[in-house]
Amino acid sequence: MSDPNPGPFAALFEPVKIGPLTTRNRFYQVPHCTGMGYRYPRSEARFRGIKAEGGWGVVSTQETEIHPSSDLTPANEARLWSEADIPALRLVTEAVHEHGSLAAIQLAHNGMHTANRYSRRVPLAPSAAPVGGDDPVQARAMDKADIAEFRRWHVAAAKRAMDAGFDIIYAYAGHEMTLLHQFLLLRHNQRTDEYGGSLTNRLRLFREVIADTREVVGDRCALAVRLAVDELLGANGMQHDAEARDVIEALAEEPDLWDVNLSDWSNDSQTSRFAPEGFQDDYTRFVKSVTSKPVVGVGRYTSPDTMLKLVRQGHLDLIGAARPSIADPFLPEKIRTGEVEAIRECIGCNICVMGDNTETPIRCTQNPATGEEWRRGWHPEKIAPLKTPEPVLIVGGGPAGLEAARALSQRGADVMLAEADTAWGGRVTREAALPGLAAWGRVRDTRLWLLQQRPNAELYLQSPLTAEDLLDYGMPHIALATGSRWRRDGRGRANRLPLPFLDPTRVLTPDDLMHTGAAAVTADGPVVIFDDDRFYMASVLAELLANAGHEVIFVTPAPVVSPWSDKTLEQARIQRRLIEKKVQIIPLSNLADMGPDSLTLSCVYGGPTREIPCATLVMVTARAPQDALWHDLQTRKQDWADAGIKTITRIGDCLAPSLIAMAVQSGHAYAQYIEHDTPPEPLREDNATDAALRLQL
Amino acid sequence: MSDPNPGPFAALFEPVKIGPLTTRNRFYQVPHCTGMGYRYPRSEARFRGIKAEGGWGVVSTQETEIHPSSDLTPANEARLWSEADIPALRLVTEAVHEHGSLAAIQLAHNGMHTANRYSRRVPLAPSAAPVGGDDPVQARAMDKADIAEFRRWHVAAAKRAMDAGFDIIYAYAGHEMTLLHQFLLLRHNQRTDEYGGSLTNRLRLFREVIADTREVVGDRCALAVRLAVDELLGANGMQHDAEARDVIEALAEEPDLWDVNLSDWSNDSQTSRFAPEGFQDDYTRFVKSVTSKPVVGVGRYTSPDTMLKLVRQGHLDLIGAARPSIADPFLPEKIRTGEVEAIRECIGCNICVMGDNTETPIRCTQNPATGEEWRRGWHPEKIAPLKTPEPVLIVGGGPAGLEAARALSQRGADVMLAEADTAWGGRVTREAALPGLAAWGRVRDTRLWLLQQRPNAELYLQSPLTAEDLLDYGMPHIALATGSRWRRDGRGRANRLPLPFLDPTRVLTPDDLMHTGAAAVTADGPVVIFDDDRFYMASVLAELLANAGHEVIFVTPAPVVSPWSDKTLEQARIQRRLIEKKVQIIPLSNLADMGPDSLTLSCVYGGPTREIPCATLVMVTARAPQDALWHDLQTRKQDWADAGIKTITRIGDCLAPSLIAMAVQSGHAYAQYIEHDTPPEPLREDNATDAALRLQL
Repeated sequence: MSDPNPGPFAALFEPVKIGPLTTRNRFYQVPHCTGMGYRYPRSEARFRGIKAEGGWGVVSTQETEIHPSSDLTPANEARLWSEADIPALRLVTEAVHEHGSLAAIQLAHNGMHTANRYSRRVPLAPSAAPVGGDDPVQARAMDKADIAEFRRWHVAAAKRAMDAGFDIIYAYAGHEMTLLHQFLLLRHNQRTDEYGGSLTNRLRLFREVIADTREVVGDRCALAVRLAVDELLGANGMQHDAEARDVIEALAEEPDLWDVNLSDWSNDSQTSRFAPEGFQDDYTRFVKSVTSKPVVGVGRYTSPDTMLKLVRQGHLDLIGAARPSIADPFLPEKIRTGEVEAIRECIGCNICVMGDNTETPIRCTQNPATGEEWRRGWHPEKIAPLKTPEPVLIVGGGPAGLEAARALSQRGADVMLAEADTAWGGRVTREAALPGLAAWGRVRDTRLWLLQQRPNAELYLQSPLTAEDLLDYGMPHIALATGSRWRRDGRGRANRLPLPFLDPTRVLTPDDLMHTGAAAVTADGPVVIFDDDRFYMASVLAELLANAGHEVIFVTPAPVVSPWSDKTLEQARIQRRLIEKKVQIIPLSNLADMGPDSLTLSCVYGGPTREIPCATLVMVTARAPQDALWHDLQTRKQDWADAGIKTITRIGDCLAPSLIAMAVQSGHAYAQYIEHDTPPEPLREDNATDAALRLQL
Repeated sequence: MSDPNPGPFAALFEPVKIGPLTTRNRFYQVPHCTGMGYRYPRSEARFRGIKAEGGWGVVSTQETEIHPSSDLTPANEARLWSEADIPALRLVTEAVHEHGSLAAIQLAHNGMHTANRYSRRVPLAPSAAPVGGDDPVQARAMDKADIAEFRRWHVAAAKRAMDAGFDIIYAYAGHEMTLLHQFLLLRHNQRTDEYGGSLTNRLRLFREVIADTREVVGDRCALAVRLAVDELLGANGMQHDAEARDVIEALAEEPDLWDVNLSDWSNDSQTSRFAPEGFQDDYTRFVKSVTSKPVVGVGRYTSPDTMLKLVRQGHLDLIGAARPSIADPFLPEKIRTGEVEAIRECIGCNICVMGDNTETPIRCTQNPATGEEWRRGWHPEKIAPLKTPEPVLIVGGGPAGLEAARALSQRGADVMLAEADTAWGGRVTREAALPGLAAWGRVRDTRLWLLQQRPNAELYLQSPLTAEDLLDYGMPHIALATGSRWRRDGRGRANRLPLPFLDPTRVLTPDDLMHTGAAAVTADGPVVIFDDDRFYMASVLAELLANAGHEVIFVTPAPVVSPWSDKTLEQARIQRRLIEKKVQIIPLSNLADMGPDSLTLSCVYGGPTREIPCATLVMVTARAPQDALWHDLQTRKQDWADAGIKTITRIGDCLAPSLIAMAVQSGHAYAQYIEHDTPPEPLREDNATDAALRLQL
């Protein structure tokens, strides 16, 4: 499809042979989940198709359950339990083929990783043991008949996958999530037969399944193997310079492609807070030295220079990506056409992962079209011109305001963006200055760069506006993107009413610390952070203050630090880091009283109270929308028409504080629907097993 | 439908007028969730229809989302976002009407209870605040236009509900889960307009919505109101002898029916471990004194004598039930026909609730047909006779064996049930002796009573059997239901390999304690319970030992005691009870070493280790199937045919240790599929929004 590119990145656009097939370039979207899968098949297909359109030479599904005994309900993965599941997946392959890319499918039997909540089947495992997670269910040890049956299921699924039109079929041993991986791992495989014990025995099933699949695919499709080359468990797990290397040596020439990464998922998909671009390189570098087959690997790569180096140094043949391909499905195309600055680089925040982990369609902080491609018809690059463009004034240059301005200017409106502060980005800029969050600034940078290219966008810093100003300007459309500020009064989740005992002279908020840094703490003595927000903010502030040498005590009603960061795969890393930084953690506790140099904590279960020292209290609980301007304008509603104002709309945190991703989406939705009275509703509905799809069989 | 009953319980079968309608008796299935809802509509309809068949005069849906801004995804509730959702609900009303019962629908706008993960709408609330749960999303304060719009949505939903055929339409202010409740509650409603402040103001919206709904239903349908009369928060919440009473007095004659209960859900659906039958009586008794309208209330009632008393004493007009109607959909019919002993009484374990909380179809420990009515065609009372009944020998009289024997004898097979022990029930009997779990014995009692009525069932206690015995008997079908035993070696979730440092002379398992009671602890000094099982077992053993005066230290790699019991709504109660009993809780810790009178604990995040005193260590980690007999028989497979054995099958914990509910279901599935080689698969698929249903519009 895309022509070879003669520019500096030409090497990235060379075709690569994968078994009997050839991919048009080196951009390879490795399997990743979407929270859509079998439950939202049209959404899934459109999502994948747009990646092919954007230049990804190979586009893969997420893990695909091959049998009811591998039932990940309520997660929305791909499913190939029976023939009836083929039409939904055919939508995916058609969408990918339409743009000349290859479609890959990652077949999976999840073994003891799942409790089979829907099918109620007994989970299968190399050895009898509790399943992963906390479900009160144990897996049973597979006997020889079970192993034979599993191999038949895998073969049947491979055939169905070919019927559905896939070009590359995976055998998947990764993330501790599949039987093929579980058989490889000593801690899960305690068998005494020829499938357990020595590595030769433990990889027997993997070898058999690869051979089975080879027989099915013949020379029509390519056979890929996905293997985790390190678990980051040291000698307690499989290591890249030990058994994992032996596995690849043993099977080196068996597949047509090696797709290598880290296990478990939290190691494979590390956020920018904990790992830089290329964090997997040291683990995967050896692979090409032990196989002649093409190798794909990942590392949250967004820099074309890095990609080029990986290829030139013979580290990888194909540049794998999951998250960067979500943030910018057109990343390859932008490199090819020399628009490198226009790439929406992944910020490594794992809000995408949150989708799968909350069993809902994927979203992305950088790319507001994510998960909306089918149901709202949004596209990451294209947006319809306005029918009758009218000028828009946007008050506030944070994530919502920047995205609204960017998208409206793309649609042809004259846009004026006014920011009260001295810098662009609002909360994005403030938060990106906190420990580990620098990459989040990309949300601002991408948009600002694009706006600066547009003749129809005017950008004004240091421009606070009043209701009077807005009535004077008389722009037809006004968006208020004035953000939010952290509350100082204690209101949050555990405390729905203000806490009367707080001494305001000793209370700081995250805004104080983001404004002044650790220097905002002026009192000597311990700083107590009270976290009732439960996501990342309190933990990065704890880092900030600990780095500055303060004694930090972290108090939370939750059982762990940052419980919601479980959804972004960060929770364990966050708590570990605070422990390393000597932060004292007091979970399951609420504030009961504040003395002159102390706090009284109550136990959330009604146990005894305790007193702790406290010189400064940082309250991380909830945010208040900064909507004074909105309320002022509401009182002047009768003047709007005379002033030429048609609509005034709150967007982003000014409407309701939420994720940065939601602020960006709110700004984008404003731009999409500015000519509607209200967004179209209900949402266009999408469903997996509906009769219309099944009838295509 | 059912005739009036002349027996002692005649009063329970009197018709009751509910507004313009009359229900045929006093049995009322109040709204409860199923984990099926809009996603599995045929399953939902069949499930509800069977309750009508079993004699429930009113059968209600679960909460029904009325708009995309009330989006509980990924939970599978009922949904009425648009006309397109009507056909799925029409299946429900048709199924209920088929048996002469009334169908009720609980309309709900969940306000700040939900984060709208799928629709991505900003959640709505009386006042701006974070949503319930930990989602990093805040709700916005509704303005007057929002309130007007919400009222229109409720009206539109009521009309759609009538189109779908419902007879009783709810306005729902309960469980802290709905806007109507959130407006009533001071801690959520901090408005300063006419919808906030005084109780009159806070109940304004409720009054308006009741009036709106009245206008829609006219005299065609009845209007029910569901109100939580107490939150069990003392003065921090709404109380039955304070504001809740005022609410009912203020609105006394407005609805046609009062459905009253406790909030939040964990208070409303308390397990038998924490509350006896009738636990809500003291809170709801007053209601009939302030309204002339019929009143329905709940209390996990399974005793017809209790029900009769409630009616005779003028406490309730209608006997509400959620859980007892799941455990036995035929409870009313069994009372009517005088088969009171045949009632499968709810054991109050909340495994049903686990379904909704894991976003998967409901199951029930007592009723294995639950959630399988449509997809497998199972019925709680009826089962097809065997085509060619052959004798079956069942080894083991625990939950799986008893259910297999019961169902097979019902199907016409000659059944021999052999139990090695001196008592029936296996683990059910052992666990029912632990603190708080006595009601679990009903799993055994129901089945044993039924088996004792059957001429074709022979029951033998104290009958251990060997492979040799089984080959001698030569029964054509043999089921091995020999259960499981707790592991002593440390293998579980946090430790996948045996712990080499355990001193076996100081290690006890739950089986030791269930066998001997607290007397199994013979050493002086602290007893450490290591819980890596993460459900109820370790916590009841902690109670047992604390009750016996031991110093108990509870160590777990989990962040809280019994984390999985969150799914059964028990977690907070369990941890509170252990704190009350002075059990020392050490979470987030694993075992690292064992000294002569101590344990070394490691931090699951890699923090410092610590040493604690330990005289006795109770390991609650995982279970090993008791399948020696199975393995013996496998080595004699060549002798089966000569012995006349056709099949030998493991069921229940002997196949894979799991919930009691799964053991019962395993026994039932064995009985259902004994004439199949394997269970039919894949499961019959059910899906909400499929085209076939939509085309019915």
